[in-house]
Amino acid sequence: MNNPNQPAQTPGETVARLSLAEKAALTTGAGWWHTTALPDAGIPAFRLSDGPHGLRLQNDTQADHLGINASAPATCFPPAVTLACTWDTDLAGRVGGALARECLAHGVHVLLGPGVNIKRSPLCGRNFEYFSEDPLLSGVLGAAWVNGLQAHGVGASVKHFAANNQETGRMSVSADIDVRALREIYLPAFRRVVTEARPWTVMCAYNRVNGVHASQNPWLLTDVLRDEWGFDGVVVSDWGAVVDRARALAAGLDLEMPSSSGAGPARAVAAVESGELSEEALDRSAARIVAVARKAAAHARPDACFDPAAHHDLAREVATRGAVLLKNDGALLPLDPAAPQRIAVIGEFARTPRYQGEGSSRVTPTRLDDALTSVREAAPAAHISFAPGFPVDAPDADAAALHEEAVRAAESADVAVLFLGLPPSLESEGYDREHIELPEEQTRLLAAVSAVNPNIVVVLANGGVVRLAGWIDDVPAVLEGWLLGQAGGSATADLLFGRANPSGRLAETIPQRLADTPAYLAWPGENGHVAYREGLFVGYRHYDARDMAVSFPFGHGLSYTTFDYADLRVTSDAGGLDVTVAVTNTGERTGHEVVQVYVAAPGERVRRPVRELKGFATVWLTPGETQNVTVRVARADLAYFDTAADTWLVENADHRIDVGASSRDIRLSATVPVTGDAYAEQPDADSTVEVWLAHPAGGPAIEALLCRVRQSMGDTYPKEGSPRHRMVANMRLSQLAGLPIVPLSFDDVQELVETVRSAAVTGSKESS
Amino acid sequence: MNNPNQPAQTPGETVARLSLAEKAALTTGAGWWHTTALPDAGIPAFRLSDGPHGLRLQNDTQADHLGINASAPATCFPPAVTLACTWDTDLAGRVGGALARECLAHGVHVLLGPGVNIKRSPLCGRNFEYFSEDPLLSGVLGAAWVNGLQAHGVGASVKHFAANNQETGRMSVSADIDVRALREIYLPAFRRVVTEARPWTVMCAYNRVNGVHASQNPWLLTDVLRDEWGFDGVVVSDWGAVVDRARALAAGLDLEMPSSSGAGPARAVAAVESGELSEEALDRSAARIVAVARKAAAHARPDACFDPAAHHDLAREVATRGAVLLKNDGALLPLDPAAPQRIAVIGEFARTPRYQGEGSSRVTPTRLDDALTSVREAAPAAHISFAPGFPVDAPDADAAALHEEAVRAAESADVAVLFLGLPPSLESEGYDREHIELPEEQTRLLAAVSAVNPNIVVVLANGGVVRLAGWIDDVPAVLEGWLLGQAGGSATADLLFGRANPSGRLAETIPQRLADTPAYLAWPGENGHVAYREGLFVGYRHYDARDMAVSFPFGHGLSYTTFDYADLRVTSDAGGLDVTVAVTNTGERTGHEVVQVYVAAPGERVRRPVRELKGFATVWLTPGETQNVTVRVARADLAYFDTAADTWLVENADHRIDVGASSRDIRLSATVPVTGDAYAEQPDADSTVEVWLAHPAGGPAIEALLCRVRQSMGDTYPKEGSPRHRMVANMRLSQLAGLPIVPLSFDDVQELVETVRSAAVTGSKESS
Repeated sequence: MNNPNQPAQTPGETVARLSLAEKAALTTGAGWWHTTALPDAGIPAFRLSDGPHGLRLQNDTQADHLGINASAPATCFPPAVTLACTWDTDLAGRVGGALARECLAHGVHVLLGPGVNIKRSPLCGRNFEYFSEDPLLSGVLGAAWVNGLQAHGVGASVKHFAANNQETGRMSVSADIDVRALREIYLPAFRRVVTEARPWTVMCAYNRVNGVHASQNPWLLTDVLRDEWGFDGVVVSDWGAVVDRARALAAGLDLEMPSSSGAGPARAVAAVESGELSEEALDRSAARIVAVARKAAAHARPDACFDPAAHHDLAREVATRGAVLLKNDGALLPLDPAAPQRIAVIGEFARTPRYQGEGSSRVTPTRLDDALTSVREAAPAAHISFAPGFPVDAPDADAAALHEEAVRAAESADVAVLFLGLPPSLESEGYDREHIELPEEQTRLLAAVSAVNPNIVVVLANGGVVRLAGWIDDVPAVLEGWLLGQAGGSATADLLFGRANPSGRLAETIPQRLADTPAYLAWPGENGHVAYREGLFVGYRHYDARDMAVSFPFGHGLSYTTFDYADLRVTSDAGGLDVTVAVTNTGERTGHEVVQVYVAAPGERVRRPVRELKGFATVWLTPGETQNVTVRVARADLAYFDTAADTWLVENADHRIDVGASSRDIRLSATVPVTGDAYAEQPDADSTVEVWLAHPAGGPAIEALLCRVRQSMGDTYPKEGSPRHRMVANMRLSQLAGLPIVPLSFDDVQELVETVRSAAVTGSKESS
Repeated sequence: MNNPNQPAQTPGETVARLSLAEKAALTTGAGWWHTTALPDAGIPAFRLSDGPHGLRLQNDTQADHLGINASAPATCFPPAVTLACTWDTDLAGRVGGALARECLAHGVHVLLGPGVNIKRSPLCGRNFEYFSEDPLLSGVLGAAWVNGLQAHGVGASVKHFAANNQETGRMSVSADIDVRALREIYLPAFRRVVTEARPWTVMCAYNRVNGVHASQNPWLLTDVLRDEWGFDGVVVSDWGAVVDRARALAAGLDLEMPSSSGAGPARAVAAVESGELSEEALDRSAARIVAVARKAAAHARPDACFDPAAHHDLAREVATRGAVLLKNDGALLPLDPAAPQRIAVIGEFARTPRYQGEGSSRVTPTRLDDALTSVREAAPAAHISFAPGFPVDAPDADAAALHEEAVRAAESADVAVLFLGLPPSLESEGYDREHIELPEEQTRLLAAVSAVNPNIVVVLANGGVVRLAGWIDDVPAVLEGWLLGQAGGSATADLLFGRANPSGRLAETIPQRLADTPAYLAWPGENGHVAYREGLFVGYRHYDARDMAVSFPFGHGLSYTTFDYADLRVTSDAGGLDVTVAVTNTGERTGHEVVQVYVAAPGERVRRPVRELKGFATVWLTPGETQNVTVRVARADLAYFDTAADTWLVENADHRIDVGASSRDIRLSATVPVTGDAYAEQPDADSTVEVWLAHPAGGPAIEALLCRVRQSMGDTYPKEGSPRHRMVANMRLSQLAGLPIVPLSFDDVQELVETVRSAAVTGSKESS
């Protein structure tokens, strides 16, 4: 079959020569981490591996998909929660590239990531694996990561498609989401990754979407993913997500993973034989798998290796870039590395880092920096004491003694650095949190420490948002480290002592309390359904629309320097807008600023968020330096999804451009006219007068009619703009015809309907 | 046909003798306010009239349904917004009785009321016509009103069925509501009126409900209204609500109003002739109309009259009972009627009362008390000045001069009573408000007046809630008068000078701001749909579930005396609970207390509100007097609607009973065990392990299986209660069978499914 003298077969040709049983076998995994090879047909297997912030390489005999068993050492980069806070596509791409090198070295062809699900609620146990509450930020970073990975010949698997926003009931719950929220919030990150990075594979979610399992949802896997977005790769099931193999194939799920011990192929064969499943569907899936298998084989480099030290350095760079300095009153940070000060390092996490999340993404790191050691190295002149302060997942520890020791350490120090965070048991793949509080022994310790020492720096380690509102007023400086990966300890020391300048910006809002969060009353659902009642209003879209106070807004993050914005200019062309602003470093340290561009659309036909992130750029400035930063806003990103038009529409009206350093720190605004997509609802007999008036052909006809009514009613006709005039606009046309006072017959109505039906309406499908 | 020697025909027999055209004619009105008479067949017409807080009697030549043209004088009682705040079923019944006497005197057979729609948002322009944000309070008062009316032989028309909660787009918008919210919030008031007061008619709403026009919605008009609730009267269309007469008849809409100039009957005849509509459907509707027409004729009393003075006194009683004393710092109220003090009466509303709403319910009053005159009469020893202060719907007035004059009047007075409120143009049937602010000139005046005089009493006139949070801290006393009807002026004087003791309790929450309200982000909908995204969490259910601050909570209202609660006892029987509490008047004036009983259900299968009103009682106590008050809570009112079981279920767990003077002033609580309805979800192959374990037959079988797994996995089996153990509970049974480590075949799964299918599950339909 691999005769070099013959022209290469297309995957379809290869599949055409397979038996039904072979094709069915091909579409199911062989064991946990390999696809099925058919050597006689020249079809190799390919190997997949858990990710995405590091390689979780298992051998097949110790395999699982829950993070239970061991895996080979690999670089543990900071998970997506932290990478997202860099807002840096270049960095995301470099992480992807490094991961690809590790994959190649281990013979892995497809790495299972990135996870671009939206953080709907801070309670989701898997939020640490996702980027953001914002679809644009999630999609842009996800696409950069995939491009970085795939440039080296390793395939990505963007996941979990779609609407896997909670762990509770994830195997069965139906995420019930209205069309606009799906289109504008939950799908765009996938769309961006698919269209801008062409991932080799897409992984379907476990859950149902609007009642249909994602693994056998033809609307998701075929209509949207392939027909609309042009995806031509393999859709792989999340491990064990297939419910009915025949329906999954019909819907467009190509590859069932892991092996179902023959059950999946048997069901597929039976379904084809009975006529329930078309053989063409099976052929299509098999051919897609053949294509990826060949691509994988072509890019394999059995002799590849990677430099663990270089990758550790990259992990450290990402960690320093992603940590977010939330607060720094009185410029307590950075600490002077040369000062002979007494520093109390408090908290078990300084010694035993909390640096990644639990579950299938769990990596065995190549090495592990702890903050205590790194702090000691960074400040050799300082006197550094350590007290663990509290137990972490250690129920038998003497908590009272730990508490007392830590308070004493703080008492005698110039500054206390408290490492607080969530124990691993509180957040994981597989289950959700029930609250967003730090453990009570930690906040109690913090209160006691801040009572004896005002110079407190809190360093947080947590994959999901924790509530700060209860204690942050007592603390001058807080560094939100999220999960910093294997080099988090050294990165933290870099930031504390100013060897690096904090540049992380929040990729999710920190609310004042759980009860303020958008999904609070619709979480985690009941009777097998979770209704996404907040619709579009997720994350900052919710807090802004309801004008609510938050602890820290989306996009917030301090630096050891300051930035000034000036000279906002917006130019537009057919493809979108260019937003240019001059940014100046007005402080004394070199640093990164993240220029955030939000758009406020008018919302004339539908309600739109107060403002939405539509672009951003990271800029690196030395003290006093000014750079013009241009952010491109694609026209497609101005559109909303109109449920009546069943397509994307750009509004034909002025849009406001808000440029700022966070979603609530808007520095400059400009208003630009936007030429929208023509759209008018097609009126019928039961459309309201208002809808008729808005129609280019119907409007004049109705105007003429109302003129006749006005003449016949005289003084009793409602005055223009009056409440009763508004009531008329509200009436259905046929209803108006039913009124004795209106000279309009039902035949007249029918004639009007015919008139507008024959009038062409243009432009309704232009944008998408 | 009316031969007294023949036995009376049933309505069905009468209809059977009619021609198709006659039957069709019978089901449509003749003109605006009469049904069609068929004298030869012995079928009289009956007359309907707008209401419900007074009779809006028009002759047919000047008829309209928008409140445009004149009507005959009738007593204008306080609208539902105010009646609701009395929480007094006896009073509601007496108002119904008085209205019936006026109807009989004017030959009206059916009065179009009460309106029991839920106040979903304070923006609804018609909120003044509705009772409450709470379904129990709405239903109990609506039923009392109907019973009072119908006891005199005048029929009611409970409206607008259903989910007419906004005026915007009311002729066409679809209210998209999930099943639980419909069942637990939007339908119960209708159910209670139908089952406890058997109204002669029900009026369908203009809007659509979940996509289907209420006027042709078989689920609403037949399945729920007739089959579930046993309604046997006439369903009448709201005026002009019929879209397709044939579909309306098929769905159960009996009477089209007003006349459609022959179009409705013609459509009905054609539909029967073509076979599209069954003649039986037309016969049923015609027979129901005949039944009501005969009942109307039998109860007609052409010689009836009523005592306008007595009805005015009743209107005054309702007004004094319904006004809510929100705040009374330093016991500024009541004012001493005998003191020779200087009182500045400020505000146009003191002279020109705002006492009812705009639209179809607008009544021409028999007389009209203004507060200024009544205050002068009540306090003859006082020096009373008056300044209008601001214009009301008078754009040409000299607002600055009015403002100055009022501030000067306040300056020189001992106390200033400010009559503030919403101009009629700001709230009406037919359109919604866009904000909840008082007019800016009024709040500016209030600020100026309170700057020169600390002794300010504000009396409010408004049909919908207004925001108080901007100014109430500057004012010691606020009386929320809502709309007080034609005797509002004298009632206000009664309350200000202590001739009456305030007893009104809020039937709706007063939020701090519009952005806090539950429907804020889902109002008024888009593209023809309004999604009720807040679901169950309407009114206090929302503020309590999110633990939000409000200006004044549901149920709040002060008195000039105080009440003490003691000795809570709860006893239960098969039909429900009796909640008994000893209430003592601990102050120095006689007064009414409203004892409010809330129930906090556990919410084990589904989320339930923090607490819900389940009963109340009004008690009249002299100083020092104690009464034992018993409130019955029906077992049916403990149930929630379970969407999986598709029925009402009472939870099998402890319920907390909260007794208080408002929803946030709980004085006593008790916990009672409740025996619930047995229900277990029927598991299938794709149900989760958790669902299987909860099933009485499936649980033991799965336990046995898991025991085998535990043995085969040994130490690697997840520990009880551990996160990974929770993951197993989350898995679908067939998914478990797909795992190589689990000794469970797909055949085993099938066997388990068969086992539970044959096991009887009892009790799932017991409660409703």
